[in-house]
Amino acid sequence: VTITAPALGRGRELVDPALRAAVARLDDDTRLVASYHLGWSDTGGRPVTGNSGKAVRPGLVMLVGEALGGTAEDLLPGAVAVELVHNFSLIHDDLMDRDAERRHRPTVWSVWGDATAVLVGDALLSLAHEVLAESGSPYAAGASRALSLATRELIRGQVLDVAFERRADVGLAECVDMAAGKTGALLSVSAELGAVLAGAPVEVCRSFAEFGAELGIAFQLVDDLLGIWGWPDRTGKPVFSDLRSRKKTMPVVWATVRGGDAGRELAAWLAGPESANDEEELRRVAALVERAGGRRWAHDEALARVDRARAALVEVSIDPAHRAELDQLATFVVERDL
Amino acid sequence: VTITAPALGRGRELVDPALRAAVARLDDDTRLVASYHLGWSDTGGRPVTGNSGKAVRPGLVMLVGEALGGTAEDLLPGAVAVELVHNFSLIHDDLMDRDAERRHRPTVWSVWGDATAVLVGDALLSLAHEVLAESGSPYAAGASRALSLATRELIRGQVLDVAFERRADVGLAECVDMAAGKTGALLSVSAELGAVLAGAPVEVCRSFAEFGAELGIAFQLVDDLLGIWGWPDRTGKPVFSDLRSRKKTMPVVWATVRGGDAGRELAAWLAGPESANDEEELRRVAALVERAGGRRWAHDEALARVDRARAALVEVSIDPAHRAELDQLATFVVERDL
Repeated sequence: VTITAPALGRGRELVDPALRAAVARLDDDTRLVASYHLGWSDTGGRPVTGNSGKAVRPGLVMLVGEALGGTAEDLLPGAVAVELVHNFSLIHDDLMDRDAERRHRPTVWSVWGDATAVLVGDALLSLAHEVLAESGSPYAAGASRALSLATRELIRGQVLDVAFERRADVGLAECVDMAAGKTGALLSVSAELGAVLAGAPVEVCRSFAEFGAELGIAFQLVDDLLGIWGWPDRTGKPVFSDLRSRKKTMPVVWATVRGGDAGRELAAWLAGPESANDEEELRRVAALVERAGGRRWAHDEALARVDRARAALVEVSIDPAHRAELDQLATFVVERDL
Repeated sequence: VTITAPALGRGRELVDPALRAAVARLDDDTRLVASYHLGWSDTGGRPVTGNSGKAVRPGLVMLVGEALGGTAEDLLPGAVAVELVHNFSLIHDDLMDRDAERRHRPTVWSVWGDATAVLVGDALLSLAHEVLAESGSPYAAGASRALSLATRELIRGQVLDVAFERRADVGLAECVDMAAGKTGALLSVSAELGAVLAGAPVEVCRSFAEFGAELGIAFQLVDDLLGIWGWPDRTGKPVFSDLRSRKKTMPVVWATVRGGDAGRELAAWLAGPESANDEEELRRVAALVERAGGRRWAHDEALARVDRARAALVEVSIDPAHRAELDQLATFVVERDL
């Protein structure tokens, strides 16, 4: 995935060495697995390049914090912490969902087994709080608290996600609530930590938390669209992958609930017996989601959420250059690969 | 298990409501599972009594902190946090080790499945840092840092434990190192947090960390003995259970390395094919461990570790009444059920 928001790239140049320094503290076995997962090495520990993620979350910490006058030193512990929590959740989610691949490479559990995936995830979560606690920031406890709350929201979202797999009657509101937990919470706390660590007043922190939460839902809506119609060479996921696994994503749930005849046909397919899932059938189902209006709605809703994100910052005093960067980031969230 | 150290019981009266208040914040699904695991409810959420653990770790926080002049308000966040981390690790360890029972009840993964065990463990780890961060203590960041380091040590110990299962040549030093990680780290940080949250100077905190680390290894040595010769009605584990699973515990490893002919016979049995594991065979193997001197060594080593724990506090100024309580706790660790 190409980074089209230059400000994100700038954050990454600072964050990458700090993240590597944090991971370097882990015990040998845990560090090897974490380095592999983060795209820095192969399974034998030999360095590789080009497999890193987008680093949206640390980018958001840096961008928000800089806009509020924070220094790199103030902000880096927060940026590293959110990226560690993000990767903790990826490793555990891949295990729970039994996903065998991420970014074109085998997932941790599929290389090293379940126990290692549990332990390495645990270590990254713990390390996140360690990095905040060691920052020496007067705002470390506040940051740690916000990060914990977000992590519990993240977990709540995953609990719902796991429960949804066993249910046929998932409603739109609970589906959006799940996305708010699974994706919104961590983007929200990323923006919030930028403000917290820059020493911003509590109302400003709250505005940025809202900014991040709305961006997060927009981000997930776009992810859901990419999970059906995305380009495999960019996303690392095969086309129709979320349909193949019959995932109850937001566009799909919207379509079943509000999508008329096409939606009812889609709901029947979702509730029906597992079938061969051949390309032709999946293409037909994707067309049903589109005909039912799910694709359109998800796209419009993502744009609306980005507007709400921008609106959350209207009353915050930010200089024009930094506001332009935050705007650009918000646009990037919805325009990446669409 | 009966609590024979009265000071531990006193701590528990204070800790229990605080722990319940922390767990009450979890989302409904996670709270139900956590309440079951903690022995407060059945799988349907109906309150039950009598299944709680010994609460040694929070007791240690309270006892140490009180000895150094800390108030209950200062110390409770630390006591709750260590108990949450302890239970996070139990839930994840039971999953990784595929242990079906704990304290005579089915384990979380065996009731609700793997994903729930992963998520509920994650939530408790996160909640531990939340409780510290919200304490308002000027020492919250230091406490969070110490708890993170201990958690990573705990994980390192479990990584070794998992690796040992696949190896035949486990040495004594690495076996003790594993116990220091798996059990020592959390008892160490429990004693340390008592000192940290009471605002003790750094050398005093370090002395208590050492006190707890030595107690932790003694505690594990006793656990290892109970895992072979313990009384099932008190420990909730069948007699010979650690032999049945061919666990490389400290007395067993000591026996294989230093135990002469009997030790070599034991090593051959451990390396041999999985057999029927009938009572008679296990009784014979337990006798081998004893004949090789493993039982004797573990018992003496536990006493020696308790002496070292006491020695770590010689230079710390503590009034006689509190020192007597700490002594009593140290004695309890080795004398429980032996």
